[in-house]
Amino acid sequence: MRTVTFLPSYRKIDVARGSTILDAAQRAGLSINVVCGGQGKCGKCVVYVQSGRTEFDRQKYLQFFSEDELNKGACLACQTTVQGDLKVFVPESTLIQEQKILIEGRDAGIEFHPSVRKYYVELQPPTLTDPSPDLTRLLWGVQRSGGPVAEKIYVPLEVMREIPTLLRHSDWKVTGTVALVPGGYRLIDLQENDTSKRIFGAAVDLGSTTVVVYLWDLVTGKVVAVASNYNRQISCGEDILARVNFARKNGLTKLQALAAESINTALTSASNTAGIDREDIYEVVVAGNTVMSHMLLGIDPAYIIAEPYVPVVQRALSVAAGRIGIAGNQNCGLFVFPAVSDFIGGDIIADILSCGMSEREEISLLIDIGTNFEVVLGNKEWMFSCAGAAGPALEGGEVLFGMRANPGAIEKITVDPFTLDPSYTTINNIKPRGITGSGLIDLLAELISACVIDRTGRINTGIENKRVRTGPHFPEFVVAWAHETDIGKDIVITENDIKNLIMSKASIHAACVTLMKEAGVTRHEISTIYFAGAFGNYLDKKNATIIGLIPEIELERIKNIGNGAVTGANLALINRRERKTLDTIASRIAYIELNAEPSFMDDYTSSTFLPHTDLTLFPMVQKLLEACRLRKG
Amino acid sequence: MRTVTFLPSYRKIDVARGSTILDAAQRAGLSINVVCGGQGKCGKCVVYVQSGRTEFDRQKYLQFFSEDELNKGACLACQTTVQGDLKVFVPESTLIQEQKILIEGRDAGIEFHPSVRKYYVELQPPTLTDPSPDLTRLLWGVQRSGGPVAEKIYVPLEVMREIPTLLRHSDWKVTGTVALVPGGYRLIDLQENDTSKRIFGAAVDLGSTTVVVYLWDLVTGKVVAVASNYNRQISCGEDILARVNFARKNGLTKLQALAAESINTALTSASNTAGIDREDIYEVVVAGNTVMSHMLLGIDPAYIIAEPYVPVVQRALSVAAGRIGIAGNQNCGLFVFPAVSDFIGGDIIADILSCGMSEREEISLLIDIGTNFEVVLGNKEWMFSCAGAAGPALEGGEVLFGMRANPGAIEKITVDPFTLDPSYTTINNIKPRGITGSGLIDLLAELISACVIDRTGRINTGIENKRVRTGPHFPEFVVAWAHETDIGKDIVITENDIKNLIMSKASIHAACVTLMKEAGVTRHEISTIYFAGAFGNYLDKKNATIIGLIPEIELERIKNIGNGAVTGANLALINRRERKTLDTIASRIAYIELNAEPSFMDDYTSSTFLPHTDLTLFPMVQKLLEACRLRKG
Repeated sequence: MRTVTFLPSYRKIDVARGSTILDAAQRAGLSINVVCGGQGKCGKCVVYVQSGRTEFDRQKYLQFFSEDELNKGACLACQTTVQGDLKVFVPESTLIQEQKILIEGRDAGIEFHPSVRKYYVELQPPTLTDPSPDLTRLLWGVQRSGGPVAEKIYVPLEVMREIPTLLRHSDWKVTGTVALVPGGYRLIDLQENDTSKRIFGAAVDLGSTTVVVYLWDLVTGKVVAVASNYNRQISCGEDILARVNFARKNGLTKLQALAAESINTALTSASNTAGIDREDIYEVVVAGNTVMSHMLLGIDPAYIIAEPYVPVVQRALSVAAGRIGIAGNQNCGLFVFPAVSDFIGGDIIADILSCGMSEREEISLLIDIGTNFEVVLGNKEWMFSCAGAAGPALEGGEVLFGMRANPGAIEKITVDPFTLDPSYTTINNIKPRGITGSGLIDLLAELISACVIDRTGRINTGIENKRVRTGPHFPEFVVAWAHETDIGKDIVITENDIKNLIMSKASIHAACVTLMKEAGVTRHEISTIYFAGAFGNYLDKKNATIIGLIPEIELERIKNIGNGAVTGANLALINRRERKTLDTIASRIAYIELNAEPSFMDDYTSSTFLPHTDLTLFPMVQKLLEACRLRKG
Repeated sequence: MRTVTFLPSYRKIDVARGSTILDAAQRAGLSINVVCGGQGKCGKCVVYVQSGRTEFDRQKYLQFFSEDELNKGACLACQTTVQGDLKVFVPESTLIQEQKILIEGRDAGIEFHPSVRKYYVELQPPTLTDPSPDLTRLLWGVQRSGGPVAEKIYVPLEVMREIPTLLRHSDWKVTGTVALVPGGYRLIDLQENDTSKRIFGAAVDLGSTTVVVYLWDLVTGKVVAVASNYNRQISCGEDILARVNFARKNGLTKLQALAAESINTALTSASNTAGIDREDIYEVVVAGNTVMSHMLLGIDPAYIIAEPYVPVVQRALSVAAGRIGIAGNQNCGLFVFPAVSDFIGGDIIADILSCGMSEREEISLLIDIGTNFEVVLGNKEWMFSCAGAAGPALEGGEVLFGMRANPGAIEKITVDPFTLDPSYTTINNIKPRGITGSGLIDLLAELISACVIDRTGRINTGIENKRVRTGPHFPEFVVAWAHETDIGKDIVITENDIKNLIMSKASIHAACVTLMKEAGVTRHEISTIYFAGAFGNYLDKKNATIIGLIPEIELERIKNIGNGAVTGANLALINRRERKTLDTIASRIAYIELNAEPSFMDDYTSSTFLPHTDLTLFPMVQKLLEACRLRKG
């Protein structure tokens, strides 16, 4: 064994000689950024070995580091093996940062009718004239207390065995917990005396980046705590693809355990906040994308990500939470949302449940944007869905000063059409460090309104303003001067950034158009557009329309539903009828493979204009742009 | 540790100093007779310590042994502790002997429709145009092969996890096993390639003395093997009461394990006979009395045997066989028959299923006789039941030369009315050692027909025949002279034996009358009388009527159903619809507590005559007795 000491935290861990530094860091509880899943490709897991013997491929490292850096001990944690006792410095930039998360609900107007309930009963002890069996006596008591019909309650052996002792020990006063599971009712727990007030449930959004937990009191129907933390799987790869590759190489066990641990950490945190015992959590409802759901359940996701992109399971699943390492009551149940396909997962079904589009006559369009985007069009009778890669631009990648929604990110911005001076707000109101996706959309809309860029996204370098200039590679617009920023550099947006942003928005718009064509629906027939996901929540509806991210409809009919995944999970937790509809919703959604649609590329090309080649599809934007042009003269 | 060597088998076992010899013997796999459950009361577990140091209460032993015996090392295995290395001789009489068991079925005319089936499917691999999830693809395949509707099949997580690899590894050719369990269908197993011919099920009669297993091929619907062995719990006490007391003292674990082991041994033996792999057993159906069923499932039976006599559970139970240590396929299911009350257990429900009385308009009377007897009267609309202690006389206890159905037992006997010379058959056709219950009933009927005894059971000592004599305590009749026997002693039946037999038969008859009164039914309305249980099978119908064991009806309407418990278990195994009716049958049976019925004692007293005080209830017997008297002059 070799001892690795990580600085600056001084965490120590003993590992076998030949282990990677990444493995040691993960065991030591450090969440290292491994975007590529430990393949030595992304160069994100940079650490500095300060002392001790290691082995690595020097030739390969020259792709990532200068000689100078190498002399300082720079190496990739995933490609360097431990040979002797080490001291390793881990720069903050190598660690995964906590994300700002969204918490929103649709708790108004939902009937409170959870799947799991407690019944306190005081029974008459048996006599010679009433020698009913213990179980019969108990279940009749539960039925009399408002529970399901006694004969319909299944009792598992482990609970059955406890019945005679518990009844007699508690002087025939007990609390039974009954859950509605596939196949019927189940007596999942029996406790002495009255514990009927102590029953809680958790709704979980299992995102690939963030895990959000809402903890509900299942007696009062109130949220008692909310908690979130990042998905610990991030240490095995930043995106889904990297993690599936990690699983292929190392097996699924670790990723499964990390998914459960991520939920457990949030559950513990929420339980502590609410001051409840985690033992009193009797149900956990999880909405996550298809790969995340598979991983959590320990079902191999490998076939989802390679042609022909096949999930193992689509339907909703109910299992014992303890079976997969979720730590609530020992008989706690776990419900996992169903999926439609590789890309339309439980999170999107939760979005649909959350916005209610599957219950209405009117047609809605739902758009969930992240690294990937998912679009669903339909109503209570039919639904079409599709998905695609949005490209990283909207999440802050492939844009020079793009960043995620971390402190210092510009998330709202306006540009004065005459002075071209921007006004912006940053997360945590500190000096800007970069621009979020929603900030970039604002910027794009503002720049076209101010005639700084044209409809193809090209910067009008003829404008006489110091903010409009030519940078080292491309024309650029200066959003903030170095002295105004937290990073000591001018924050700019380049023509190349704009091109990448347009490619992202064009994909999404073309996807919407493809579904509309498939369904024979025009923009006039869409009653509501819903934005879901963290990104959607900060999106300016008008600006999204101006740049042509979405089809133009009246702005008041565009709604942000925020974290639809957790809202959907909340709904399924507190209302058993909502849950019952999920498999039906999933089975009703047709999935359209965009790459197989001949018209998609044409629609994409038409959408690479701001807002579109065909301005008649964007009459409001057309008027606005004309007004701007007139104003500018 | 001390080493105990048992003779004559030379089995050795190491035990902790201070263990009892009984414990050592049980660990060594010897089935010692412990009627009292190891309380030092019954004196059955006699062994002889030939060498080595032991500890015991000499004063107590003088109740059981002479000084001479003690000097030979005689002691009770349950009351003697091991102090040094021992050599212990175990006489054959101390070991439990294998019982002769009954094997019968009602397999004609029953539709073959088991609860568990295999489906071999050859699937199309997924393509870009058909990317259905693995599970959907598999279940559709099962449905196309004649299985249940895909959406209705629940798939447990452990099977789900195996699906993707198994499908691909087997080139999409797999065999799925689907079971009908409470709540619906369940995919309990998935195997590569075509194993659809390898599916077996076992029906088990879990008797307190004997375990009988029928092994069925669930494809062909044929019995492939039958096996039986004694219930290993016997080493913890011969009767139910002793075993429950054993459990109270030592916990239930051992008795639970012994019950499972008893079934496993029979399963292994049947599997070996049939040449099948025990892994291919997918379902086990067990019928046993209420206490046995509780013990097998590890549910405390303590409250069944003490006032107010309350079972924990009455309903039929389905559990994973592996959970309770039954060794079949790892996903093998176990179905345990329901019970009505403490005394009317799954074995009686199986009898009812077996004789079909609960399906017919006509009224039937079912009598199951063992140490206890159970009586059920009714038809498809109503059923009354009762139970009582038959007394040990019919099982060979409390009768000087009574014995169980072991080799050498007289089971059929006639007595020449003039010479009084008996003719008999013995089990295994060896020289007689004693008389079974059925032999005793024959003898009683023959002796009254020959006017050797009167209707009160008194022996007419005035008869001049060397077989009629006065023994050391009571008048007696010599059945076999010493030289004709295997035991070198005259085998006789005494007036005291006859008194005990009459008490037993009176209880049973009074029980029948009580139910008939309760239901307002006369003997004329009874269409059929069924005898169930090992005892019933050898019973002479006419003789049983002559002595007034049962109400008199036409002899051809009296039927032996043999081991109704195993027949019922067979039915429930091979026909899922039969199984579904069980809980309904159980719930429809009213239980009459005989001791609480004021008229029972009167009926009992009236029944202590041969056949009864009121001869008008037995017109056939009346005529017969008159004819005999006339013949004798």
